[in-house]
Amino acid sequence: MAYRDERLPREKVFRDPVHNYIYIQHQVILDLINTKEFQRLRRIKQLGTASLVFHGAEHTRFTHSLGVYEITRRICDNFKRNYPTKTAGDGLWDDDKERLVALCAALLHDIGHGPYSHTFEHIFNTDHEVITAEILTSPETEVNQVLRAVSPEFPEQVASVIQKTYPNPQVVQMISSQIDADRMDYLLRDAYHTGTKYGTFDLTRILRVMRPYRDGIAFQISGMHAVEDYIMSRFQMYQQIYFHPTSRSMEVILSHLLLRAREYYSNADNANEMGAPYLLFPFFKHEFDLDDYLLLDDGTLTTYFAHWRQSGDPILSDLSHRFLDRKPLKSVIYTSETEHELPGLRDLIEKAGFNAKYYTATNNSYDLPYDAYDPKMKKPLTQIELMEEDGDLIELSSVSALVNAITGKFSGDQRFFFPREMLQNNAADTDLFDPIYQAFQQHIHNDTLI
Amino acid sequence: MAYRDERLPREKVFRDPVHNYIYIQHQVILDLINTKEFQRLRRIKQLGTASLVFHGAEHTRFTHSLGVYEITRRICDNFKRNYPTKTAGDGLWDDDKERLVALCAALLHDIGHGPYSHTFEHIFNTDHEVITAEILTSPETEVNQVLRAVSPEFPEQVASVIQKTYPNPQVVQMISSQIDADRMDYLLRDAYHTGTKYGTFDLTRILRVMRPYRDGIAFQISGMHAVEDYIMSRFQMYQQIYFHPTSRSMEVILSHLLLRAREYYSNADNANEMGAPYLLFPFFKHEFDLDDYLLLDDGTLTTYFAHWRQSGDPILSDLSHRFLDRKPLKSVIYTSETEHELPGLRDLIEKAGFNAKYYTATNNSYDLPYDAYDPKMKKPLTQIELMEEDGDLIELSSVSALVNAITGKFSGDQRFFFPREMLQNNAADTDLFDPIYQAFQQHIHNDTLI
Amino acid sequence: MAYRDERLPREKVFRDPVHNYIYIQHQVILDLINTKEFQRLRRIKQLGTASLVFHGAEHTRFTHSLGVYEITRRICDNFKRNYPTKTAGDGLWDDDKERLVALCAALLHDIGHGPYSHTFEHIFNTDHEVITAEILTSPETEVNQVLRAVSPEFPEQVASVIQKTYPNPQVVQMISSQIDADRMDYLLRDAYHTGTKYGTFDLTRILRVMRPYRDGIAFQISGMHAVEDYIMSRFQMYQQIYFHPTSRSMEVILSHLLLRAREYYSNADNANEMGAPYLLFPFFKHEFDLDDYLLLDDGTLTTYFAHWRQSGDPILSDLSHRFLDRKPLKSVIYTSETEHELPGLRDLIEKAGFNAKYYTATNNSYDLPYDAYDPKMKKPLTQIELMEEDGDLIELSSVSALVNAITGKFSGDQRFFFPREMLQNNAADTDLFDPIYQAFQQHIHNDTLI
Amino acid sequence: MAYRDERLPREKVFRDPVHNYIYIQHQVILDLINTKEFQRLRRIKQLGTASLVFHGAEHTRFTHSLGVYEITRRICDNFKRNYPTKTAGDGLWDDDKERLVALCAALLHDIGHGPYSHTFEHIFNTDHEVITAEILTSPETEVNQVLRAVSPEFPEQVASVIQKTYPNPQVVQMISSQIDADRMDYLLRDAYHTGTKYGTFDLTRILRVMRPYRDGIAFQISGMHAVEDYIMSRFQMYQQIYFHPTSRSMEVILSHLLLRAREYYSNADNANEMGAPYLLFPFFKHEFDLDDYLLLDDGTLTTYFAHWRQSGDPILSDLSHRFLDRKPLKSVIYTSETEHELPGLRDLIEKAGFNAKYYTATNNSYDLPYDAYDPKMKKPLTQIELMEEDGDLIELSSVSALVNAITGKFSGDQRFFFPREMLQNNAADTDLFDPIYQAFQQHIHNDTLI
Repeated sequence: MAYRDERLPREKVFRDPVHNYIYIQHQVILDLINTKEFQRLRRIKQLGTASLVFHGAEHTRFTHSLGVYEITRRICDNFKRNYPTKTAGDGLWDDDKERLVALCAALLHDIGHGPYSHTFEHIFNTDHEVITAEILTSPETEVNQVLRAVSPEFPEQVASVIQKTYPNPQVVQMISSQIDADRMDYLLRDAYHTGTKYGTFDLTRILRVMRPYRDGIAFQISGMHAVEDYIMSRFQMYQQIYFHPTSRSMEVILSHLLLRAREYYSNADNANEMGAPYLLFPFFKHEFDLDDYLLLDDGTLTTYFAHWRQSGDPILSDLSHRFLDRKPLKSVIYTSETEHELPGLRDLIEKAGFNAKYYTATNNSYDLPYDAYDPKMKKPLTQIELMEEDGDLIELSSVSALVNAITGKFSGDQRFFFPREMLQNNAADTDLFDPIYQAFQQHIHNDTLI
Repeated sequence: MAYRDERLPREKVFRDPVHNYIYIQHQVILDLINTKEFQRLRRIKQLGTASLVFHGAEHTRFTHSLGVYEITRRICDNFKRNYPTKTAGDGLWDDDKERLVALCAALLHDIGHGPYSHTFEHIFNTDHEVITAEILTSPETEVNQVLRAVSPEFPEQVASVIQKTYPNPQVVQMISSQIDADRMDYLLRDAYHTGTKYGTFDLTRILRVMRPYRDGIAFQISGMHAVEDYIMSRFQMYQQIYFHPTSRSMEVILSHLLLRAREYYSNADNANEMGAPYLLFPFFKHEFDLDDYLLLDDGTLTTYFAHWRQSGDPILSDLSHRFLDRKPLKSVIYTSETEHELPGLRDLIEKAGFNAKYYTATNNSYDLPYDAYDPKMKKPLTQIELMEEDGDLIELSSVSALVNAITGKFSGDQRFFFPREMLQNNAADTDLFDPIYQAFQQHIHNDTLI
Repeated sequence: MAYRDERLPREKVFRDPVHNYIYIQHQVILDLINTKEFQRLRRIKQLGTASLVFHGAEHTRFTHSLGVYEITRRICDNFKRNYPTKTAGDGLWDDDKERLVALCAALLHDIGHGPYSHTFEHIFNTDHEVITAEILTSPETEVNQVLRAVSPEFPEQVASVIQKTYPNPQVVQMISSQIDADRMDYLLRDAYHTGTKYGTFDLTRILRVMRPYRDGIAFQISGMHAVEDYIMSRFQMYQQIYFHPTSRSMEVILSHLLLRAREYYSNADNANEMGAPYLLFPFFKHEFDLDDYLLLDDGTLTTYFAHWRQSGDPILSDLSHRFLDRKPLKSVIYTSETEHELPGLRDLIEKAGFNAKYYTATNNSYDLPYDAYDPKMKKPLTQIELMEEDGDLIELSSVSALVNAITGKFSGDQRFFFPREMLQNNAADTDLFDPIYQAFQQHIHNDTLI
Repeated sequence: MAYRDERLPREKVFRDPVHNYIYIQHQVILDLINTKEFQRLRRIKQLGTASLVFHGAEHTRFTHSLGVYEITRRICDNFKRNYPTKTAGDGLWDDDKERLVALCAALLHDIGHGPYSHTFEHIFNTDHEVITAEILTSPETEVNQVLRAVSPEFPEQVASVIQKTYPNPQVVQMISSQIDADRMDYLLRDAYHTGTKYGTFDLTRILRVMRPYRDGIAFQISGMHAVEDYIMSRFQMYQQIYFHPTSRSMEVILSHLLLRAREYYSNADNANEMGAPYLLFPFFKHEFDLDDYLLLDDGTLTTYFAHWRQSGDPILSDLSHRFLDRKPLKSVIYTSETEHELPGLRDLIEKAGFNAKYYTATNNSYDLPYDAYDPKMKKPLTQIELMEEDGDLIELSSVSALVNAITGKFSGDQRFFFPREMLQNNAADTDLFDPIYQAFQQHIHNDTLI
């Protein structure tokens, strides 16, 4: 039997807290899970610094990737049972042709992520999407070897789904659209592990009303409220979890810490110290290859931080301490009207003895909860289409007042981060810095810069 | 106000997936959570290698420690509301005197754990209980500084609860007995994160029927079945999760890997290589202090393994690969009757090219699900007492046929671990090793050595 | 001890699927639950005909009433712990004075409901609010006897909370406002029993951010998103459960059935038949007293329907059959533009052999999901107030784009109901009525009248 | 297409709180659900008087019947996917032949139940199994008409599955054995609605390890602990829910009430009173037909009780009041050693003014949680078989110490029920009956007769 069609003699399952079981039916999928590149995702937390606020959220990208696979598998099952193609081009689902490429793309869509991905990329100018494509298509990876065994062009096909250039929009939208297997899994999973309820929506019902059509995936109109509820859940998760100020403040510390390390180890003497971060040197110099990248995980970084906490460089040492021992910065909301106050605040912070470059930051958190298709956007979004009984399509926000209220509107805030010492109230009367703290605190009211 | 009585101006909460919220009311507790020794528990997984079988089980000892604190807090609330002491020695609960010491002991009971605790201790002869006591009582730790601020003797008091020498048995049994806050939290939490249901029992009901008496803690007889159900849950979790053969096989690899590393780096040349595990050297030589110990976490070990995977030593490299990339050993059950076959099997494994010292192991997993008090035991267990309406006590197994069935009986199995290559079926016909594999496989039937 | 202060020697609990346990601490509350008027609520379903669509929703008003009590109890606990009054008029919570009246009002707020309340009231012109007040204040009820034992004016006080005339707005709003114990319980409970997820919101968090102030109850601004999420849940439950067209169609049948019965039994001969509905006669004539009312429950009505199903009157018999054996009417949405078509449709239905008076109906379902206070409304709503750190209040819809999108806007639809026979497709070719059906069906497209 | 193969153009679903969705795929099944005999199950509570103790347990036999159908459907799906027959007699699953008969039997297995089945049968000597068979095979029922349309012998086939005489033991054991779809649904459902956790077991895992073999259904040995856990859950539900003394005491009242009514209405004058229970007369005389039976539901009985509460017969009136207004009897455990005390107690109760015939009772509750096959039993049980890797079978209790501990042992107790007035403590000093109460109370200690 061709490798692409090889079924396991008996279904294999992984117990999963969100989906109960993950069902593995293809030898290809099992082989991909067993590659070292995929196993490495066990050592990279899904939510990065958010686990420092929501302590249960210690789950990894490994777990999430299996979940995206499982949701995709269920979508395929439903499409095969209810909307099987009869003649080429009829806009229905061609399971024989599309299932395996969809499943592989779902499983591997995050394989290029590194530790604390967002921050790491920002500082070292890496790109997890580029690296994902590399892992899929470079002949030396175990992932590529498995994919290649399906067919020589299969690695590129899977990569093209993730890059949204695959010809069948049904497959692309399954993995990547405003309501896709990726988002549905992370909302449910992050809600489960944080212990919050905002991310809960009715997955079974959404899978039930999902259907293929010529230009991608649509939802039966009878399921409108279930889709609406999913959009609301997503909105809430961003507001309550992903944009949490304390979590963002730990990201600020992390990025300043990596910046400081690059600067410190650019000095050749320092670079020869015991405990120098050899594995990071290629990134400090921006001369890294795929092997360098695949050696990194969350533990590598925190192991360096533990070394650095004992460093002779006071800033490197202090920032490492603040990160490992969880001493977040504080923050206030500012707006374009109050932004002009920031230089004054930074001055006060410098006067209080902090290097403003490493101890302050501004950080914007904005999300577009939903938008209709807009050809003028740089990357136009695939809008959510509802299908009426007679087959007509209608865009979600045109029938949902709730969705319409947030369509095309960014939500979030911009914050100025600073050391919590600036808010100290218990300074002794004779404290030399007292007037500085008082001047600083006058600018803050109701969590906002005034 | 005395520090020991200092309440937070407003209750602080941590969102928790198992208990919904963890409520912090004392400044002391908040300060303990913020110590570096406690924050370090965020980097040590609760279940070690079990997350390699149950992928959701990536939760840490930090999370569990908060949970044990919360259950203890709820027990104290119930005791205070329903069983407050009136006169000294009446066998009821003295909340003013005992609450804080109970809460601190609950929170800190696991603070001495290191990475992959069980295996690490076995190989390096460390003892997490000794280290816990050290962290509580050594003046240089942040934990000790917080405890000392309560009173000079407070650190010793908290330590004595954990060591079971504290005079009030109610406090000791709350934290450590056959049905204590520790076990109740880990069963519920491990069930939640693995996604299994075996560990689920009725916590609210058990807390409701729990009550203090002169010699410790008893349970109203009306709650007998809830207690029975807890014992059953515990039994099931051991059988299904904690004793899982694949998880034990990953522990075998881990311990052999650490053994090999100690041997390899005992050679001075190797010890000077780049990437040598400086942080482990004190343990290789068994000359470590508390600071050395507190630098270690899960990430430190896996970072070394990533280095070792590229080592020139083939065994060190291969075992690192097997651990990081999850290539478990296989195993079979053996008994005292079949044990004599093991040397023969080890010979075959050597012939197939594996060093039996590093590639085979025997491992017993036995648990005593419940036992009545037996003065002849080395460490007699506190039996579970049920209280009748008239105040009489009756031991659990004497009224529960189910509990009686497993009382005093060890459950578990003993297994022989070996490389999965020994079971390969797809060896080419001309394979030189074929007769070896065949000879080996003849000894295995229905997962058992014959 | 005064009866009002009498605590149970030991807390009593009722196991509850939504709140886990309901805790009873006052003798008064236990005595109220044991009255015959309260026990009668066990025989009246909470959701009426909705259980004919969501089969799990068979829970009763008894269960819900206990739930409203429990939520109120938890609110009082939180207020007492965190916001106790110090001086009269400080806007904080006076637990000694207010707890018992709040708990009784919560428990008894629905005590005047009868079977299929909404429909029954509409047809027989009864009013459950008036009856609630009567049950509380009439000396012959068991409820009144319990309340009177607290103090002579206590029955009136409890009634005034339910009627919103009680002087302390904190107590009134706890039981009755846009976010009160009543709504919070029914959303969670109806979601639980229907098995849908829309009604799920974060009760614990809402209770945590709730606080008393001078003019009632406010919510800390940090909990804004939890409150917003509650409003969304409420909106979804109305759209998906409470307004379900099939459930409304069964209500239409029920009301037509009761109408027909009144007409039929107004004939004296019929009124003497075996199985005549003696218990309903006082309502047919609108000459009923409280005793008549309290004899009715769901079972009384369905028992009559079972008799009527065998009646000689074909309409009474057929409608009884349609209700008991669940044969819903069909429906289409119409608007003010298409309303003029209805008489033509009714004609076709008459031609097909149905009495349009009993076999057709129009029915509007509209809900106001949230509104700010508007003095011009007949019954202005208590708006939801958020409290900022400095104590300022801010109305919910002014900070939540989502809530704003539905504020003051009615949601729902208007539908025309008719026999499902009108849509039959399998009429034999020679069917005389065929042209009638075809004419009828031409008016319907995508579930809408055209 | 033949009716038996007729699939719905699109799967229909019912939202279910336990199974999430119930999937209907055959026209036959939908037609059966729509019969009046099946709809009648909506008016018969699953747990009878247990809802008077666990107030959430108001679910009906309708809901449970759908659940048994759904579990059976999932078993068939699994068997079809993994164990399809290849040659007749190979011991695997013949889905084409067996699915529909299995589904119909699952759906209809409880169709003969009446209101408060257990008690009603006991008093009126009816038998729900006989009636089930009658409903399936009598030509006048709607159920029979649907079944007959499949084939003339189909009604008898379905009936034979329920009567365990159907030739294929796989189908019989699916519906009726020690681990069948019936029990699995009611344990989960009763746990859900009572809000207890004891009934929770891992349904998905059990369905996964279930498999057909020549003589019925077996379970893969790897699932032993899941099966063991199911047996434990079942045991706990009996101990904690089904055998609850208060629930049994309400059954005692109910049976005495029906007895009294039969006696009272055997007098012709009484039988002509307004409100006389015409629908029960056929049962009083034991001359009923199927139509008489199908007219009854829970509401019919409680409607009569409401009438009787106002009866001139003091015992009929008082027992009706005790049932409707929930005034349970009290009870004590007695044994064969203390049984001789009962006549003395009955004397005291008579002296206190109660008719012992109607106000006392003995009631045994015993369940056999599990047993191996024993040919000496009157109705030998199908034992639970585990299948080893090589196909050998092994009986459950021989490998599970827990199950072995309760195998073949009846659990439960025997209780003596009496009016709670006998325990009154607040009798005035001058109470004439005081010595009687004191004499009575001396016999009771720790809930047990002494």
